Amino acid sequence: MNTAAIYHRPESEFAYLYEKDVLHLRLRTAKEDVSRVKLIWGDPYLVEKGQRKEPVEMRKKLSTDIYDYWFISVRAPFNRLTYAFAITGKDHQQFFYGDQGLYPLSEDVLALPHLYFRFPYFHEIDRFKAPEWVKKTVWYQIFPERFANGDPTNDPKGTLSWNEKTPGRKDYFGGDLQGIIDHLDYLVDLGINGIYLCPIFKAYSNHKYDTIDYRKIDPDFGDESLFKKLVDECHKRGIKVMLDAVFNHMGDRSPQWQDVLVNGKNSKYADWFHIHKFPATFKETDDFEEAYDITYDTFAFTPHMPKLNTANPEVQEYLLETAKYWIETFDIDAWRLDVANEVDHHFWKKFRQVCDKTKKDFYILGEIWHSAQSWLEGDEFHAVMNYAYTDAILGYFIKKRLSLNSMVVALNQQLMLYRAQTNQLQFNILDSHDTPRLLTEAGEDKDLMKQVMAFTYLQPGVPCLYYGDEIGLTGGADPECRKCMVWQQDEQDQDLLQFVKRLIALRKNWQEILSQGETIWREVDEQAGLLILKRQLNGKTLQAIFNTGKKTIPLPREGQVLLSNLSEQKGQTNTVFAKGFLILKK
Amino acid sequence: MNTAAIYHRPESEFAYLYEKDVLHLRLRTAKEDVSRVKLIWGDPYLVEKGQRKEPVEMRKKLSTDIYDYWFISVRAPFNRLTYAFAITGKDHQQFFYGDQGLYPLSEDVLALPHLYFRFPYFHEIDRFKAPEWVKKTVWYQIFPERFANGDPTNDPKGTLSWNEKTPGRKDYFGGDLQGIIDHLDYLVDLGINGIYLCPIFKAYSNHKYDTIDYRKIDPDFGDESLFKKLVDECHKRGIKVMLDAVFNHMGDRSPQWQDVLVNGKNSKYADWFHIHKFPATFKETDDFEEAYDITYDTFAFTPHMPKLNTANPEVQEYLLETAKYWIETFDIDAWRLDVANEVDHHFWKKFRQVCDKTKKDFYILGEIWHSAQSWLEGDEFHAVMNYAYTDAILGYFIKKRLSLNSMVVALNQQLMLYRAQTNQLQFNILDSHDTPRLLTEAGEDKDLMKQVMAFTYLQPGVPCLYYGDEIGLTGGADPECRKCMVWQQDEQDQDLLQFVKRLIALRKNWQEILSQGETIWREVDEQAGLLILKRQLNGKTLQAIFNTGKKTIPLPREGQVLLSNLSEQKGQTNTVFAKGFLILKK
Repeated sequence: MNTAAIYHRPESEFAYLYEKDVLHLRLRTAKEDVSRVKLIWGDPYLVEKGQRKEPVEMRKKLSTDIYDYWFISVRAPFNRLTYAFAITGKDHQQFFYGDQGLYPLSEDVLALPHLYFRFPYFHEIDRFKAPEWVKKTVWYQIFPERFANGDPTNDPKGTLSWNEKTPGRKDYFGGDLQGIIDHLDYLVDLGINGIYLCPIFKAYSNHKYDTIDYRKIDPDFGDESLFKKLVDECHKRGIKVMLDAVFNHMGDRSPQWQDVLVNGKNSKYADWFHIHKFPATFKETDDFEEAYDITYDTFAFTPHMPKLNTANPEVQEYLLETAKYWIETFDIDAWRLDVANEVDHHFWKKFRQVCDKTKKDFYILGEIWHSAQSWLEGDEFHAVMNYAYTDAILGYFIKKRLSLNSMVVALNQQLMLYRAQTNQLQFNILDSHDTPRLLTEAGEDKDLMKQVMAFTYLQPGVPCLYYGDEIGLTGGADPECRKCMVWQQDEQDQDLLQFVKRLIALRKNWQEILSQGETIWREVDEQAGLLILKRQLNGKTLQAIFNTGKKTIPLPREGQVLLSNLSEQKGQTNTVFAKGFLILKK
Repeated sequence: MNTAAIYHRPESEFAYLYEKDVLHLRLRTAKEDVSRVKLIWGDPYLVEKGQRKEPVEMRKKLSTDIYDYWFISVRAPFNRLTYAFAITGKDHQQFFYGDQGLYPLSEDVLALPHLYFRFPYFHEIDRFKAPEWVKKTVWYQIFPERFANGDPTNDPKGTLSWNEKTPGRKDYFGGDLQGIIDHLDYLVDLGINGIYLCPIFKAYSNHKYDTIDYRKIDPDFGDESLFKKLVDECHKRGIKVMLDAVFNHMGDRSPQWQDVLVNGKNSKYADWFHIHKFPATFKETDDFEEAYDITYDTFAFTPHMPKLNTANPEVQEYLLETAKYWIETFDIDAWRLDVANEVDHHFWKKFRQVCDKTKKDFYILGEIWHSAQSWLEGDEFHAVMNYAYTDAILGYFIKKRLSLNSMVVALNQQLMLYRAQTNQLQFNILDSHDTPRLLTEAGEDKDLMKQVMAFTYLQPGVPCLYYGDEIGLTGGADPECRKCMVWQQDEQDQDLLQFVKRLIALRKNWQEILSQGETIWREVDEQAGLLILKRQLNGKTLQAIFNTGKKTIPLPREGQVLLSNLSEQKGQTNTVFAKGFLILKK
């Protein structure tokens, strides 16, 4: 047995409360190395007396290229658990694996309570809790400057005509909050039930990530009362509202930074930032967003975005009060946290407490591109933007950077990084204001786009649609991906729109299975490009067939078609053409 | 290469700030499987542009039976780090290991920033901080009822004469706070500089773990003003004071529980506990501390210790105010937390904040017998009672349950569970009021006792001496290990006392190396029973030779003897006899 591959970590994604009295346990072993794993368990104070429960078989749940992951869900009569794993190798070796490592399995070893792992007490208060509504949500991301111009009177000077050109870095087209309000019924018709708004606070740029005033709506977009109306109108329609909090850094035009520039170390805001040497200066390059010899910490090397010192209690209070203000006064439902990984944990824990206290079931989403376990322990964020997950999907379906097997491995690997309830809340995006448009990435191949969207909407986690994807907007990397939304019906791709509506409807109708169901890779056929995925919950099954190869694939007919593209169900056959898919109810 | 054995976990004991701007990184590989590891690193925003720092070699630091642990300490110019590992196997295979797993090492892979691990920003506020004084401390544990009777007027009814018999479970001998005050100069002379007091709050039993009133000194021991005097007298002598907080459960004679018994679910304390069904009842067994069909949660199955509901804000406030009260009013220096693992994390995080706010450099020690990473992230405890560590030591030296190699493996395994600064604060005990006395465990073999104490005092972490061990007290499991302290000099083992004094002095004189120095196992000779341990810091070295075998071991003479037993340094030879040891300055 490859003993060095065996891994479990107490009180982590390997051992956590899933429900109040249900504990999930995972164990990792080398791939195809172990034939069975049994859980040895009992109450800690009874095991000390030799009274163990009957061992129970664990199930191999998911695999990667080098690991198998074993799983079991247990309840403990006295809300306390001591446990270990009895592992049988394919080579018939047997090991006891517990808190002090591996021992050859024997009655003597089983009798030593200090060798067991512990889950000392099932504390509901420590459990990672998932707001139910988030699982039921399909998000729609809006870049406000480009969605709709509902009020030309607030257009900044030099605003271009709507959609007159592909956007440049500093163009304004007049999009605003009234424009969003005007099109809420469009969004209801589309089926989405959550809006994620890029920043709307007073800022300098068109993207508003360089905040000047966290308590003001940018005048280009409207004002506070209009925003209140937007939230109210959304809520009337069952749509949740998520705002973007840019708390890692401030804009350099903010009064706080301006004060630092004027007063140097005597500024009352001198300790609001990380300034290594006064005066706060930098040397320019040709690129506006890039400087060198900066004497203060910034976002990346952007001198216009000085990093906030969130260890300073004044800054904490200012930002936490800001967070509370928008929840309390405007009733927003979620915060999306920009560059969340570069802000300290200490601050985010306080932030979470403020949000929890201010509104029940509030949702916190962090922008983190890498693995994020330490933010997802239950006392900071509910989820992160699931780039690592959707990257793998794009890497296979679109970019052909990964093989089919590698994609499945990567997805399974990601699923095993987090607790099940975290996976259910993860924010799955295929594109955004920071990346090329999906249709563009797909080489403007709509069938491919439909296929990858269908696959993504079947994953655990909540999907997010980037505004305009549904009607065929295109565009490469930022700023091209921020084109104006097209509102003339004859210029919208109606076929795509209908498809997206059906896909969103499917995601909502089958939400419970798609959120909480098990993921089963029924067939992963690299050569044919055939992928059959099952999602299962309480005996109910969805099955989806994807033909990512070049040849037509005929399969025995089964199930009832819920949604499909480039496929047909005829006689005894389900035929899936290249780039096609078929989602079935079984 | 055994790729499945390779492990790193971002933001954990594998990647943590050691000092404000110094990051420690660890990597685990299969034992003897990898020939070198290089760190690939740079600023995240520069690596995106292909600008990496020069790779640096990692060092193999410690090994267990199946793993090697690699280590490096780095600084990052912009306080941000992206990193990965270039691993070369003994089979000459080369892998890149990062956030998405393993890839064959290539320039293409190195150029993909999303494959790297991240330490997004060096946040001092999130760093695990170690109070310096703790590292300099040698603790002395006192079981107050048995240390000294300084005031016969507070003796409870039925108090026996001092030391008239081996203690039974319910005996009283009259020990009290005045007794401790009376003997502080003895403790100063002994050399200890921290007292850990078993519970002293009003309670029913002689051990006082069944608290009746958390705000009162038990009248058997004295009163608040006497306790204040004790703390002041300790501080005058440079001795720190640690109290025992029993916050997992309360005594059943407390007014709160009594109210629950009288008023059932209408009691205002009904939600202070975990009561599954009213009335709160149980069925007795022959054992006072054991019941069944208990309708409420308890410590173990002890019906007289109902578990507190620390998720209840009233209970939180009561306990947190208690914690604050003893720090603020009496200036205590540390809390030791009883059954700390069974209380929720949410509560301990608040507890830590209260302590930090109330007194600078306050120390929090949790009673946890198993691995405790999730309590030692820097926002709950500073250390735990290091049973797993000292168990391994006892397991080899005394109980002969482990081989020499297994002990070293177990110790290395424990050291790799925690950050370096945690290891430096761990609480190393060889016995306590809950275990047989060390001398008794050693079969009353004083040389063996000296050897195991010397070995333990050379370890990272802070040693704790159980009262009376130094003068030869004996006793098996509780209650025998709670004998009265012997104060007649002619009944004290003066030889042992002198030895312990010298050992404590050595620990204090060489504290910096012993706390922070590297641990090097220079020789681990199973057959001869020879163990040579080096501790090293900034070019200074301590070396210790232990003969745990049956034969005399001659070694080339080196170093200057600091402390020894059963050994001699003559001519060109260091001779260590069976059960002997030699601690050298090199």
